[in-house]
Amino acid sequence: MPDRPRRIPEATVTRLPIYLRILSELGGERGATVSSERLAELAGVNAAKVRKDLSYLGSYGTRGVGYEVEYLLFQVSRELGLTQDWPVVIVGVGNLGRALADYAGFTSRGFPVVALIDDDRSKIGTEHVGLTVQPVADLPRVVVERAVTIGVVATPPGAAQEVTDRLVSAGVTAILNFAPTVLTVPEGVSLRKVDLALELQILSFYQQHRESAPSASPARRT
Amino acid sequence: MPDRPRRIPEATVTRLPIYLRILSELGGERGATVSSERLAELAGVNAAKVRKDLSYLGSYGTRGVGYEVEYLLFQVSRELGLTQDWPVVIVGVGNLGRALADYAGFTSRGFPVVALIDDDRSKIGTEHVGLTVQPVADLPRVVVERAVTIGVVATPPGAAQEVTDRLVSAGVTAILNFAPTVLTVPEGVSLRKVDLALELQILSFYQQHRESAPSASPARRT
Repeated sequence: MPDRPRRIPEATVTRLPIYLRILSELGGERGATVSSERLAELAGVNAAKVRKDLSYLGSYGTRGVGYEVEYLLFQVSRELGLTQDWPVVIVGVGNLGRALADYAGFTSRGFPVVALIDDDRSKIGTEHVGLTVQPVADLPRVVVERAVTIGVVATPPGAAQEVTDRLVSAGVTAILNFAPTVLTVPEGVSLRKVDLALELQILSFYQQHRESAPSASPARRT
Repeated sequence: MPDRPRRIPEATVTRLPIYLRILSELGGERGATVSSERLAELAGVNAAKVRKDLSYLGSYGTRGVGYEVEYLLFQVSRELGLTQDWPVVIVGVGNLGRALADYAGFTSRGFPVVALIDDDRSKIGTEHVGLTVQPVADLPRVVVERAVTIGVVATPPGAAQEVTDRLVSAGVTAILNFAPTVLTVPEGVSLRKVDLALELQILSFYQQHRESAPSASPARRT
């Protein structure tokens, strides 16, 4: 029997970090449980979807009891690859790159920032969070020496594709793009985008609908 | 007959900005169409879900043809409240707050940053992107004078709840939280969170599964 009998759908993968955050926040004492209905409410999906998503992890809960929080947290973490560290290089050391390098949530969740890259001469050689900014030409060496697997693109939009190409040439196989532009990568390289305005658009939906229908309101605890 | 016969589920609302981005990127000439299958592929959901989501907007497409891109773009924008501007105040003018103030994607998509707030004496009175940093005590006046509806919290986690309370007292009814902490707001205030590490967790899933099953790979264009 194969080790991984079913491929997990991408939509499920994108919900796993949300379940992870909810489970971390639920925390609680040993043996604490959570129902699929409660998870669904907190995640903003329906309970059947939660049960289906978690079934891909081999987690089925117990009827009338739900899921054991601690064990489910372990299962989701393991599935997401969070039982090991994934060293990250940040390219673009402007305000955003520096903010990302500062962001405590990266290191604490298994994404240590191991290098900062920028081709701006006024930045090369300066220090930030204990790292010395290096030029793009250093990428191939940095990627090998620090076992970097994820490249974070925090450059202006105009530079993002070239930087991405350089990251891929250097051997990085996953790119997280913060630049407000569309990037392409070769087959076999994973690419995700963070759109900082996306959540604002969700808020504007509720703002507008508040005016027309005051009852509409999103979850009040996130 | 009521103006808004069905309340749009929260899960659908969270997908609308994704459809919006895809439709904007598709662009194309007048009269260009897109199938629900293609939209689904680009959004990482299934086609039935796309059709259901868009049906809440009163958009049903044409069998064998799909949806007209330009009109659907208008419908999604209108539903998200993007046919008007929503002035934003950013609280916390560190690297992240400055990066958000710089972020071209805010203003261009209808979220002009109209004020920067920070209680750090070394920051008050300094200028960034044409705005003078003001103290938290100015919030009530700024919110009224600039018709602010959305507050962006970009403070360290320890200050985020107090700042949120001050924003709410000042009359802000939507909060976007970038601080890696859980916030609570009163009934009637919308709250969303941006977790900068979430997409990294999705990438680590694919990195891990690449090692165990090289065929697993997310969409390569985002």
